[in-house]
Amino acid sequence: MTQEIEAEVRALGQRARQAQGQLLARDSGAKDRALRGMAELLRRDAEDIQRANRKDLRAAEAAGRDPAFIDRLRLDESRIEAMAKGLEQIATLPDPVGEISDLTYRPSGIQVGRMRMPLGVIAMIYESRPNVTADAAGLCVKSGNAVILRGGSESLHSNLAIAERLRAALGRAQLPLDLVQYLQTPDREAVGALIRMDDLVDVVIPRGGKGLLSRIRAEATVPVIMHLDGNCHVYVDRDADAAKALKIVVNAKTQRLGTCNTAESLLLHRDRVDDLLEPLTAALREKGVEIRACSESLPRIPGAVAATEEDFATEYLAAIISLKIVDDLDAAMAHIARYGSGHTESIVTENFTTARRFLREVDSSSVMVNASTRFADGFEYGLGAEIGISTNRLHVRGPVGLEGLTLQKWIVLGDGHIRS
Amino acid sequence: MTQEIEAEVRALGQRARQAQGQLLARDSGAKDRALRGMAELLRRDAEDIQRANRKDLRAAEAAGRDPAFIDRLRLDESRIEAMAKGLEQIATLPDPVGEISDLTYRPSGIQVGRMRMPLGVIAMIYESRPNVTADAAGLCVKSGNAVILRGGSESLHSNLAIAERLRAALGRAQLPLDLVQYLQTPDREAVGALIRMDDLVDVVIPRGGKGLLSRIRAEATVPVIMHLDGNCHVYVDRDADAAKALKIVVNAKTQRLGTCNTAESLLLHRDRVDDLLEPLTAALREKGVEIRACSESLPRIPGAVAATEEDFATEYLAAIISLKIVDDLDAAMAHIARYGSGHTESIVTENFTTARRFLREVDSSSVMVNASTRFADGFEYGLGAEIGISTNRLHVRGPVGLEGLTLQKWIVLGDGHIRS
Repeated sequence: MTQEIEAEVRALGQRARQAQGQLLARDSGAKDRALRGMAELLRRDAEDIQRANRKDLRAAEAAGRDPAFIDRLRLDESRIEAMAKGLEQIATLPDPVGEISDLTYRPSGIQVGRMRMPLGVIAMIYESRPNVTADAAGLCVKSGNAVILRGGSESLHSNLAIAERLRAALGRAQLPLDLVQYLQTPDREAVGALIRMDDLVDVVIPRGGKGLLSRIRAEATVPVIMHLDGNCHVYVDRDADAAKALKIVVNAKTQRLGTCNTAESLLLHRDRVDDLLEPLTAALREKGVEIRACSESLPRIPGAVAATEEDFATEYLAAIISLKIVDDLDAAMAHIARYGSGHTESIVTENFTTARRFLREVDSSSVMVNASTRFADGFEYGLGAEIGISTNRLHVRGPVGLEGLTLQKWIVLGDGHIRS
Repeated sequence: MTQEIEAEVRALGQRARQAQGQLLARDSGAKDRALRGMAELLRRDAEDIQRANRKDLRAAEAAGRDPAFIDRLRLDESRIEAMAKGLEQIATLPDPVGEISDLTYRPSGIQVGRMRMPLGVIAMIYESRPNVTADAAGLCVKSGNAVILRGGSESLHSNLAIAERLRAALGRAQLPLDLVQYLQTPDREAVGALIRMDDLVDVVIPRGGKGLLSRIRAEATVPVIMHLDGNCHVYVDRDADAAKALKIVVNAKTQRLGTCNTAESLLLHRDRVDDLLEPLTAALREKGVEIRACSESLPRIPGAVAATEEDFATEYLAAIISLKIVDDLDAAMAHIARYGSGHTESIVTENFTTARRFLREVDSSSVMVNASTRFADGFEYGLGAEIGISTNRLHVRGPVGLEGLTLQKWIVLGDGHIRS
């Protein structure tokens, strides 16, 4: 059985590899036609897709899944339209593949530069939201990659209905269908085979809950682009502007509670406890946020709970924030280095030198001055789209758009040049 | 015992992590002073280093190692001077750390850009050449990283003598000594622990023979930057200039036999067999190169040997080349995709369209037109130095210099901006 599954997954990988190689010879126009065709077929077949989605919804309801889960799973007309619009938006982005940069003459007479190339074959593993099927496929194809999709079993009918249209659109644009494949085998082992198939899969991108992400990180031998936690900090410095601090802390924590760029921890400079602790915590409590406070701040905050070590390391994804009073910038940065997840940190300060140090010395994928952590997002950064956010130390850090799905090779142009 | 070794390696990793964090706060000048100090101490203590080296040489001779091995191990005055000059050269290169690029205003009003940061802790695992100790340490420190060095046991005394001077120079420049550490534990297990210490080591860079490289690739869970093979191709196209083809093929194969960018396989367009097969193979044979020929070319080449499938996939690192007649550009590129190692490939052609297709569609770390594969080198490309060559599909491809040891994070500058 295991061997059968492995053979099936390998066959998928081989078809993906071959399709990706063929795509290298095709121009940007063909890819964009395919993306626009995908949008067209999703719209045309919206009813069929919703019918497939209803199967998934009924099964999820029968299984007693909670309303939030059911909502993420649901594909109504507006969500299908959003997928289509997303694909059309990707079609309008510049093609990163083949982009040549830094082409210069060297003393030897050769011209040396770099050309951007696809990574190869991407395995995309995700949970209930079926729109990831279209979003991920669009970004992978545009960036010249082949993708093997594997969504949650609860959304299988929805995902297959979408993937079928994506493949049909590739066919219409005369591109290889196997640029987009869906791994259907229900067995969990199939995912295990996929993420250890080093010779046929170049990178794994998981999207979903921490259970899925931890498993992928632990078991994959193929490189993984991901972030596990978004334990984001706002540090209100000694030289913070009070109004900015208030705006940013409230926005970073409460604008949306469940996103990875939401602030989970507030650090407050000791010299600003007297004037800022009360208004900051009052504003948060007014928004329904529970405060888990360090021993020093605890007695001064009505209704606050004592923070444990664990709290400072926790991504709540809920209306809770941890709070710590710190002595100075160094203490704030040491706290972030110790408890942070390398996702996004923001300082509120009017001090030029303090801001400059924070920007340089904080080693997170996004580092901000006087801005809400909620800005850490591919669209806000101008990437045009986002396949995920990476806290990796290698390849790509922060929001991952088309460029993150490519890598530069070197090109050399000569006129019969040889090395002496 | 195993636990003891693991604890020892972890302690090294923790010290490296801490030292690297401290380095983020230091400026370029301190790093450059340390590098120049390293050069100074290597020169000052050249005799002590040679004394330590003689211990290694005697042991290697007693163990009956071959002359090429002994030669790689030997540190004479000129090699110590070369190490010192290399460090001074690295000191003159621009500091990649903190470099800000693409800082632009977004419609939301925030300014978004990227800042280059060190990777973190690098494990450098290498074989007999002791100069790697200084070269790798210089590149890692300049790029803001900490390095854990592990050389071959045969060069232990030499490596330790060098590492001691490097650390002393860090101390003189008031930088943390643990930016450069040497893993001394003789057990092989220590390397195993090092390359699986995901939380404390960010990347492994191996340098050495295929035995070492294969082992690291198979066993590491930390990401590895490396190339296993350099099975480089020269394709002489239908529209090749005969004189350029001759020059390039001979140089690519024979300028140095043992380097990874040496050509190992020659592809010849069918239409040029009549005029080019004889002169190309005669020139190679004159340089003492054995030709392993495809069935079609074999009868036409005096002294040639029949090539097997294995030959086309082999990096000889010797005076041998495989040769295949191909029908056209597509056949040449298909052959490269099948047998190549993704290192370096060159086409000889005067045809603009053919050159353009080869550049775009060949998926190797260096792709060349009318130039010898021997140019694939960090110095020739203008990187100023090179820690290795990567055929990875992620992070960095081709020669790896200072930039390859860094990664861009995102920075956001605001004025109290929040997301709505």
